Amino acid sequence: MAQINASIITIGDELLIGQVIDTNSAFIAQSLNHIGIVVKSRVAVGDDKEAIENALNKAISENQIVILTGGLGPTADDITKPLLNAFFNGKMVIHEPTLKHIEYIFEKVHKRPMIDRNRKQAEVPDTCEVLFNETGTAPGMLFKKDGCFIFSLPGVPHEMKWLTENKVIPLLKTSFVSHFVKHRTLLTAGIGESFLAELILDFENAIPSFIKLAYLPNYGMVRLRLTGTGSDGVALDKILDEQFELLKIKVADYLVTDEDDTMEVVVGKLLKANHQTVATAESCTGGYIGHLLSKHAGSSTFYTGGIISYDNRIKTEFLDVPTNILQTVGAVSKEAVEQMAIAVREKMNTDYAISVSGIMGPTGNTDEKPLGMVWVGVANKEKVVSKVFYLRFNRQRNIEITATQAINLLRLLIINKI
Amino acid sequence: MAQINASIITIGDELLIGQVIDTNSAFIAQSLNHIGIVVKSRVAVGDDKEAIENALNKAISENQIVILTGGLGPTADDITKPLLNAFFNGKMVIHEPTLKHIEYIFEKVHKRPMIDRNRKQAEVPDTCEVLFNETGTAPGMLFKKDGCFIFSLPGVPHEMKWLTENKVIPLLKTSFVSHFVKHRTLLTAGIGESFLAELILDFENAIPSFIKLAYLPNYGMVRLRLTGTGSDGVALDKILDEQFELLKIKVADYLVTDEDDTMEVVVGKLLKANHQTVATAESCTGGYIGHLLSKHAGSSTFYTGGIISYDNRIKTEFLDVPTNILQTVGAVSKEAVEQMAIAVREKMNTDYAISVSGIMGPTGNTDEKPLGMVWVGVANKEKVVSKVFYLRFNRQRNIEITATQAINLLRLLIINKI
Repeated sequence: MAQINASIITIGDELLIGQVIDTNSAFIAQSLNHIGIVVKSRVAVGDDKEAIENALNKAISENQIVILTGGLGPTADDITKPLLNAFFNGKMVIHEPTLKHIEYIFEKVHKRPMIDRNRKQAEVPDTCEVLFNETGTAPGMLFKKDGCFIFSLPGVPHEMKWLTENKVIPLLKTSFVSHFVKHRTLLTAGIGESFLAELILDFENAIPSFIKLAYLPNYGMVRLRLTGTGSDGVALDKILDEQFELLKIKVADYLVTDEDDTMEVVVGKLLKANHQTVATAESCTGGYIGHLLSKHAGSSTFYTGGIISYDNRIKTEFLDVPTNILQTVGAVSKEAVEQMAIAVREKMNTDYAISVSGIMGPTGNTDEKPLGMVWVGVANKEKVVSKVFYLRFNRQRNIEITATQAINLLRLLIINKI
Repeated sequence: MAQINASIITIGDELLIGQVIDTNSAFIAQSLNHIGIVVKSRVAVGDDKEAIENALNKAISENQIVILTGGLGPTADDITKPLLNAFFNGKMVIHEPTLKHIEYIFEKVHKRPMIDRNRKQAEVPDTCEVLFNETGTAPGMLFKKDGCFIFSLPGVPHEMKWLTENKVIPLLKTSFVSHFVKHRTLLTAGIGESFLAELILDFENAIPSFIKLAYLPNYGMVRLRLTGTGSDGVALDKILDEQFELLKIKVADYLVTDEDDTMEVVVGKLLKANHQTVATAESCTGGYIGHLLSKHAGSSTFYTGGIISYDNRIKTEFLDVPTNILQTVGAVSKEAVEQMAIAVREKMNTDYAISVSGIMGPTGNTDEKPLGMVWVGVANKEKVVSKVFYLRFNRQRNIEITATQAINLLRLLIINKI
């Protein structure tokens, strides 16, 4: 079984000074992995000729596939294209379909005349196969050397994605016969990584050597992933399914989903299946729960809307939280979040509601109410349930964990576990 | 002037299959850059002994500083610590302060008994200097070899951050005398990358060789960054300031801020300075604008709250959008967003309001209203202004761009430019 190895090289000074977070290589890695190609390394280098050439030489010598992103823009710090032209001994020529496409974009979309800089985007080395880019002005390129396929893609995420899905992956599928890499992923909640490891110790010790188990903790939950490799896809699926069933039984008490879904997708699917709706009343999360519930396509079938009651005045005026509750037990309290959940559900006439109120930091705490203290409430027609969390992270992470835990609490209410 | 070079190695199969986006190396790169250390490369490798050792050998041979993150957890796929123990010829010993800390965390925070796996977290190679981790159970480690400092940090982002800020950076500051790397960053809006490049062509051609200019486009805006290097920090600051002033004059018509701030931070500062407040009425962005306005500490002084009117029923019941508007021109219209902005501002009694309604995709479009069509409204006591955008991206990116452009429209209203 010949393993097909790939390396991803991302180019740009902005990656080395940390001004931009590299989401491109995660996307490319996922896409390659999905068709059984193993990413052996990911490297980020600056807009620096020598560094790019070194990374390219190393990657070509160690892999059958190399994917570069970035450095293809119209400005002077984008040096990838001339570098590749020299590296692969080519000369620059105009790619006519790309030039027509750029002219079209400027005429119809930007509605302004193009300048020489834009025209240069249509130039490509004559030693490459052009990957026509429907989504932007910089074309993708494919070079071949010593049996290695070297792709160059723009760094703009949606252009890189489009080219990967529509050009790179189809090309690789037909050019490389590869073995299979398959995954099974489940999500647990309510148990820490080390306790989970104890719980499934026997399982972990008994899995076949061609299956790997990984723990992926995030947002106070742990995802478990089985990865199997093999030359027979059908046989691999069968044994992975068997092992996955064993694992699911072991973690049954903590199992959220046996698909590779996020918490909000799990809850969205539950609501859709039940033809039910939810509304939100958010204080400290400021709209983030609404964003999670609405960020996936099709969410309008179950997410009705919400009140962001950031200021206490909004809690009283829009969610009928009595001022005496705010003055006595305060906005971060069982009483306040339960009233918020009840009110938003009734006012928006939904089946369920989620509410949150807490102290996200870095200030706003008192002796009785520490930083990271958050009350979460969920309600349906019959009841309201609330829970307090004490989080120990920074503001951004506290917001994210609160939102995910609040949606998990709704899940428990929907499936009658609370 | 001796340049101090560093390499970042992130460890974990989850990075190579793209299941996790690497935010750690961006943070570490920023922190190193800030003290004048140049990150020459960032490499991601799997939980694979040989790959880690190869990356480590290469990094040590090319840099004075190497920072590893990941692979220090309590589970079997975390192999970094035993690998480093063998690599640096050590033997494992218990680090007593860390053991006491783990015992404390289990007794006081988790409130459950610890298991052997947790105790093992306190083991470290006797060849390392322990970097005590106040924020978690896995200690950081510092090894030294051939004049190179090799740090190993946990992959959990908040623990990695704490150790970087409190242990790694102070140690590097005292151990390496370095030259200075300084940045000046500004944000423009309303001009594309290639037109901006034409506008500042003379400036770009005339900047001194020790200053680099970079274009960082995002969310339909372009950030410009000057990076200068030099051994005299005061002289470097002076010439960078001079060049930055020249650049600001060139881009004056499009300048949003001359600080390295995001759009919502710029607007938050404006509102705070004016002692003014804003409310939001969101349809297609589902709470994301509220999240942006409230994600930074101190936002409660200017962000009052909002209505997420995802369902049209909420637009009518909570924001008084007449049903005849929804039935004739529809929810994605000038009339609807202007009414939404007016209503939420009046009802929440704020100085300003932002409203949005659009078609984020991938479905929901009609012949007259294409995917990516978004109406944005902003209002103050005197007037309401609206603008339509046609976005061409995926759902997530359309949401992000809409939110940022809506906040920019509010900025223009606040500074009397619309």
